Amino acid sequence: MNFTASGSLIVVSNRLPFVLKYNEESGSFERKSSAGGLVTAVAPVVAQCGGIWIGWSGLYMEELATTKLEIPESDPADKTPTAGIKSKQIVAVNVDKEIFQQYYNGCCNGTFWPLFHSMSDRAIFSTESWEAYVQVNQEFAESTLNALRKLNETPETDANIPLVWIHDYHLMMAASTIRQKAEEENLRCKIGFFLHIPFPSWDIFRLFPRDDEVLQGMLGCDMIGFHIVDYCLNFIDCCQRRLGCRVDRSALLVEHGGRCVRVRPLPIGIPFDRFVQLAKDAPQVLSCSNQKLILGVDRLDYTKGLVHRLRAFERLLEKHPDYKEKVTLLQIAVPSRTDVKEYQELKEDLDQLVGRINGRFTTPNWSPIRYIYGCVSQDELAAFYRDSAVALVTPLRDGMNLVAKEFVACQIKEPGVLILSPFAGAGEMMHEALSVNPYELDDAAEVLHRALSMPKDEREVRMSHLRKRERTYDVDYWMKSFLKEMGSLTVEDGDEVLPTTMTPLTMDDFEGILSKYVGNEMKLALLLDYDGTLAPICPHPSLAVIPPETKRVLERLANMSDVYVAVVSGRSVQDVKNMVGINNITYAGNHGLEILHPDGTKFVHPMPLSFEEKVRTLLKELQEELCHDGAWVENKGAVLTFHYRDTPQSIRPQLISRATELMRKNGFVADRGICIVEAKPPVHWNKGRASIYILRTAFGVDWHERVRIIYAGDDVTDEDAIKALKGMAVTFRVTPSHTVRTLADRRLPSTDSVLMMLKWVERHLSKRKPRHNSLSRNTPPGKQILTLMGGDEGYQAEIIAPPGMTSTCTNGAHLNGNGFASHLHDTD
Amino acid sequence: MNFTASGSLIVVSNRLPFVLKYNEESGSFERKSSAGGLVTAVAPVVAQCGGIWIGWSGLYMEELATTKLEIPESDPADKTPTAGIKSKQIVAVNVDKEIFQQYYNGCCNGTFWPLFHSMSDRAIFSTESWEAYVQVNQEFAESTLNALRKLNETPETDANIPLVWIHDYHLMMAASTIRQKAEEENLRCKIGFFLHIPFPSWDIFRLFPRDDEVLQGMLGCDMIGFHIVDYCLNFIDCCQRRLGCRVDRSALLVEHGGRCVRVRPLPIGIPFDRFVQLAKDAPQVLSCSNQKLILGVDRLDYTKGLVHRLRAFERLLEKHPDYKEKVTLLQIAVPSRTDVKEYQELKEDLDQLVGRINGRFTTPNWSPIRYIYGCVSQDELAAFYRDSAVALVTPLRDGMNLVAKEFVACQIKEPGVLILSPFAGAGEMMHEALSVNPYELDDAAEVLHRALSMPKDEREVRMSHLRKRERTYDVDYWMKSFLKEMGSLTVEDGDEVLPTTMTPLTMDDFEGILSKYVGNEMKLALLLDYDGTLAPICPHPSLAVIPPETKRVLERLANMSDVYVAVVSGRSVQDVKNMVGINNITYAGNHGLEILHPDGTKFVHPMPLSFEEKVRTLLKELQEELCHDGAWVENKGAVLTFHYRDTPQSIRPQLISRATELMRKNGFVADRGICIVEAKPPVHWNKGRASIYILRTAFGVDWHERVRIIYAGDDVTDEDAIKALKGMAVTFRVTPSHTVRTLADRRLPSTDSVLMMLKWVERHLSKRKPRHNSLSRNTPPGKQILTLMGGDEGYQAEIIAPPGMTSTCTNGAHLNGNGFASHLHDTD
Repeated sequence: MNFTASGSLIVVSNRLPFVLKYNEESGSFERKSSAGGLVTAVAPVVAQCGGIWIGWSGLYMEELATTKLEIPESDPADKTPTAGIKSKQIVAVNVDKEIFQQYYNGCCNGTFWPLFHSMSDRAIFSTESWEAYVQVNQEFAESTLNALRKLNETPETDANIPLVWIHDYHLMMAASTIRQKAEEENLRCKIGFFLHIPFPSWDIFRLFPRDDEVLQGMLGCDMIGFHIVDYCLNFIDCCQRRLGCRVDRSALLVEHGGRCVRVRPLPIGIPFDRFVQLAKDAPQVLSCSNQKLILGVDRLDYTKGLVHRLRAFERLLEKHPDYKEKVTLLQIAVPSRTDVKEYQELKEDLDQLVGRINGRFTTPNWSPIRYIYGCVSQDELAAFYRDSAVALVTPLRDGMNLVAKEFVACQIKEPGVLILSPFAGAGEMMHEALSVNPYELDDAAEVLHRALSMPKDEREVRMSHLRKRERTYDVDYWMKSFLKEMGSLTVEDGDEVLPTTMTPLTMDDFEGILSKYVGNEMKLALLLDYDGTLAPICPHPSLAVIPPETKRVLERLANMSDVYVAVVSGRSVQDVKNMVGINNITYAGNHGLEILHPDGTKFVHPMPLSFEEKVRTLLKELQEELCHDGAWVENKGAVLTFHYRDTPQSIRPQLISRATELMRKNGFVADRGICIVEAKPPVHWNKGRASIYILRTAFGVDWHERVRIIYAGDDVTDEDAIKALKGMAVTFRVTPSHTVRTLADRRLPSTDSVLMMLKWVERHLSKRKPRHNSLSRNTPPGKQILTLMGGDEGYQAEIIAPPGMTSTCTNGAHLNGNGFASHLHDTD
Repeated sequence: MNFTASGSLIVVSNRLPFVLKYNEESGSFERKSSAGGLVTAVAPVVAQCGGIWIGWSGLYMEELATTKLEIPESDPADKTPTAGIKSKQIVAVNVDKEIFQQYYNGCCNGTFWPLFHSMSDRAIFSTESWEAYVQVNQEFAESTLNALRKLNETPETDANIPLVWIHDYHLMMAASTIRQKAEEENLRCKIGFFLHIPFPSWDIFRLFPRDDEVLQGMLGCDMIGFHIVDYCLNFIDCCQRRLGCRVDRSALLVEHGGRCVRVRPLPIGIPFDRFVQLAKDAPQVLSCSNQKLILGVDRLDYTKGLVHRLRAFERLLEKHPDYKEKVTLLQIAVPSRTDVKEYQELKEDLDQLVGRINGRFTTPNWSPIRYIYGCVSQDELAAFYRDSAVALVTPLRDGMNLVAKEFVACQIKEPGVLILSPFAGAGEMMHEALSVNPYELDDAAEVLHRALSMPKDEREVRMSHLRKRERTYDVDYWMKSFLKEMGSLTVEDGDEVLPTTMTPLTMDDFEGILSKYVGNEMKLALLLDYDGTLAPICPHPSLAVIPPETKRVLERLANMSDVYVAVVSGRSVQDVKNMVGINNITYAGNHGLEILHPDGTKFVHPMPLSFEEKVRTLLKELQEELCHDGAWVENKGAVLTFHYRDTPQSIRPQLISRATELMRKNGFVADRGICIVEAKPPVHWNKGRASIYILRTAFGVDWHERVRIIYAGDDVTDEDAIKALKGMAVTFRVTPSHTVRTLADRRLPSTDSVLMMLKWVERHLSKRKPRHNSLSRNTPPGKQILTLMGGDEGYQAEIIAPPGMTSTCTNGAHLNGNGFASHLHDTD
């Protein structure tokens, strides 16, 4: 295989490719090989290119307390696919038993397994197990990063970027952590993921309370593979609806965190030739008879539809008694998750059902069902596959189902018939199988009858095509497809190549988001954060200048009769006004503690007097103790901002924790932002409260009936406003991050996209014919403020009229005698 | 209301708008009114326009055996919305108790209720209950048809077509029966449907084994209403994927059975003003205290998330102990389906949980949960709604949820906060509510905290907007929207009007269906039925002439080097050849019992000699006994076709049953087709077996690797071929019917659309550059036939070479000495 990233493939899966067993006699660990298709395909590539395999050793931390884990080399006689993997290529992840249980039995198999199989009623949602899941995923991510760090010690070329391949629902949160830290540390890598189970529809997936985190965890990858297109589209749908991502359904792309993630159908195959060989070599294990054999092989799991299958077979014998003594159902049920109650109950149900059906139909020389609860060897299995007339693969839901594929591979003699559930991924591809809904017992019985009586020419053509497809699209093909999608294998002529980039964000993208909302005879209020929203983030706040084009658009918007603009910032109100430099708009500073109206009146959130003293104390302490190595404190009056953007990475954790400590000690709330820690007085006031205050002031108590609102912000403090306005505004979170959680309707990658949004608004509103402006720029906001004063809210607004200006009072409201109203007090 | 269809509105719902109770004393039935929103909205319209309400009386047939059901008139003092409905406007549907149980508890509530709420694990799929469901739906349809027949006695104008409005998941199969019979009897009507519960995604809906029948049942309507757009799109998706319908997702249309069905979001509202009045009038029922009240009101159902809700409240008290003695959760659980075990268990769980939480937190003067298991009066309810600080509406899945709407309607004093699950339909519209995932207990507790501590200005603006929307979009608005969509109420300026027709089928429609399949260096085999596929169905077979354009396209296709054409018909082979009149193609007659190859060689399926005599006997019997009133028998050699197209409707059932009887008596299989009954010899041969034989003959055993196949047919006998080729061909069922079941990939409405498909194929293949023709027209099919003879199939083919022609034998195969091979015998 022309694997261009040779030497730097890192496979990350829940389990290592072999099981480790401690041999008491030799006092050392031994490898026990595993025969799964994944290992068969991937292990030789890892071996050949000297790659690394990261996985759980099968041992708990507690067990390793007394015995040091040393990965053994393979036995010289080892002929399994993992034989070529050296011990130095294996990284064992070790986890506490309790955490692992919560992660594995709890979150993986108690939550994700049923949820992803669209059996949401069986899913248990627990915060504890989710936290364990995140923790274990971080362990795996950390091990992967260590491996990357080692690889990074040798210089790389562009063509030789390490490839991290993460597997399955156990590790959906690893990619984002790997990406984030790798970016921070400048470690280069490509990250791919493959999900071996179904991905459910949005309707089901959204039930999981941390659905957004799972999606973002996966979107840390460059490419995400699923078995079939349906799962890809489900995933894309979830990204669009839950995260507000831009997506491209035909090119199967999701834009997130400023990157374009490829979503690809990569149906897994089997080692076809190996199964053919097994079938050729396997001895006849079934005593020769003129009975036809129906075969079922499954892990004993509720998704497999075993109860339904046995009942369908019973129905066949009821409706077609001719089959008595002529057919036998051989059902192999491989024990699974035997420590879980649900699985124990399923086994009991099955045992009972087999007993009942056999009791009903058995004759002196024949029992209808042969039921093996246990494992069978690969040889035996191949013989069963080869010698069966019918394989009954009828899961209620299944990501792919490899039994269907193994059966056709082994059908090297008289062609049999595959019966396949449409709810298995394999059902999407293996068209020539007979399809049956496992829930429909009558139909299943009839399809069984059809299979048992199918003319040979039809069996032949169906089986021959099924085999041809599986031979072509075997597990090696799957492996190669994955590597090609990751750019780690040369694309050949004839390979289908989907686009890997989306068209850049344009103004038209806002058409779908905003055109039904904005306009419609309603006014528009634009509430915008400054730093990181209007102006790009800069090393020092004084450098964060609003781009001239943004300023011009904003000015034109502010001059439109139906548009109201407010800039809501964490800066001091005077600072933000200076930075924006537009006159006839509203400015809110210090996260809304100060609000400056266009007419010059000003609202100041009342601050307990004692805090004036505290601000001075805290400022002094911060400056004396922490302002070194580039750290500094910005004094914004009621709020102090500790900046550490210019400090070295290494000392940051210490700086942050000490700054937080000092703030709290002085009675402040410490909030983290992008490279800052802010000390705020402990008042229930934030950008959310301030936004509602601004809207109420400008448009009256019933503002929501008069005005459409767009809010955009990039900071965690903007999330307060996004939350408060949720459902009453269209909200944008500006973030290039792929891990940030937000309640915003949409994400925007950068300040450029905010500008594009503003330009769309301008264009959209300019198209309309001008109409009467009922909100004059010249009306002082006093009127609206005073509805507050006269209301039942318990507010008292402090209105600071600039010299020479007279406020007009209406509605029976009045200003305090001196024109300087006393404190606005929030009683809530 | 300007209801243009006055006098002819027929409402069909599972229950009548009032409950009937037998009063032992008076010896007569009495009305007990029902207070649901549906009744409140619809009953006055039915009363006003003299419409009809059809529903189950609440009484079983058995109960009515002794007591005659007479619908009582309303009491003069009756002030309920149904007071105006006269007894003659009520049609009671009576059903056997056992059937009703299977229908109601079995199919409706045991299958559809959980399935449509995406809780498929709880759904029980049973053939018996499905059959009861179909039967009860037919009873309802029959009652509706009776009502239509009565209405039809008075002449109608175009503007006055009766409107049938069917409600909910109990009656999804009624519309197609009504439509079919109404069409047969020339009864005019418009049929609308509204689903009051969610419609699930395709991924879930497809689990139901009769999914296609349910969809077709619903598609009998002119318009189908759902609460929200998501449900509409789910339904449209199912129609496209399951039935192969053409759909238009932006105009929300589905094409089926040659008609265009409108799918519309019609979110139901509440009688807003009535609730406001109730809230105004209701006395203070909660003793005044400074405790805040959190309210929950639900039917006791597993979809309502009651257990999660109580746990979330417990979490609130854990995390915020300040709320102890300050808040109370008043949970009203209305008893429901109390005879079902699942519901009894849920009640037990709930009882226990309430006890446990109260036991944990109760103080001498306070219990955290007041739990009322029972019904409360509307007055009381309105008081609770009015006086609660928070309403907790957190279903796990809910079609709409009216409690959320009733709460906001009654919020006429201090504004409270609505907490709403995103999994309720109401969650899609009521944006200003606080949204919470009921599964996420921690988050639910935090949202409760936020609601309880929300500043008044935010509560005010949120509640005011919620109220405004519900006031505007109340239940009358919903009623009017429905009538407008049905064309029974004038559309006003400003109403959003979606298109009601789709663009007609064009060649381009086949692009998406076929372009990836046809071409690709593969040959193409077109297997086409004749009557109803190539030629329109005619009163007499001799009139069914192939349209000249179809013939020309087919001729050009037959002359293309890579195209193989076979016409597979129920006619005799000579007859079909004469009708089509193209030379160089294959003809299969008598459903494949005779096959005529282009070179003149002929395959005849061997018939037991005894059947020659039987055919003569049966022909005589049919002619003597049944050939009157326009019925006649077509003698096709091995097959006899009894035609009854020209006979009067009234005698048809008798003709069909007698013809079937005679055929069976003589040892034939009797198959029904469109206005025919056919007697076929009991051989395992049909259009499916014949199609595979034809392909194998023309392209060799491994034909599937060389050829793409399109099959099109309109008859039930074509279904054999569609089934046999399933997964190995693209199959079309030509049918204008909306009730036919088919395994075909796609449906085509008419022979015109077949022509369009053929033209698409011609255009598509002509675009390619010509390539070497490896399948020469001049190669006799003998080679392929003889692979059959030499194979291991047990076939022996009879090859009838026309005079003067010599078959070329290859591959070591040979013709029998006389050139007339002996019988082909199907050993399977």
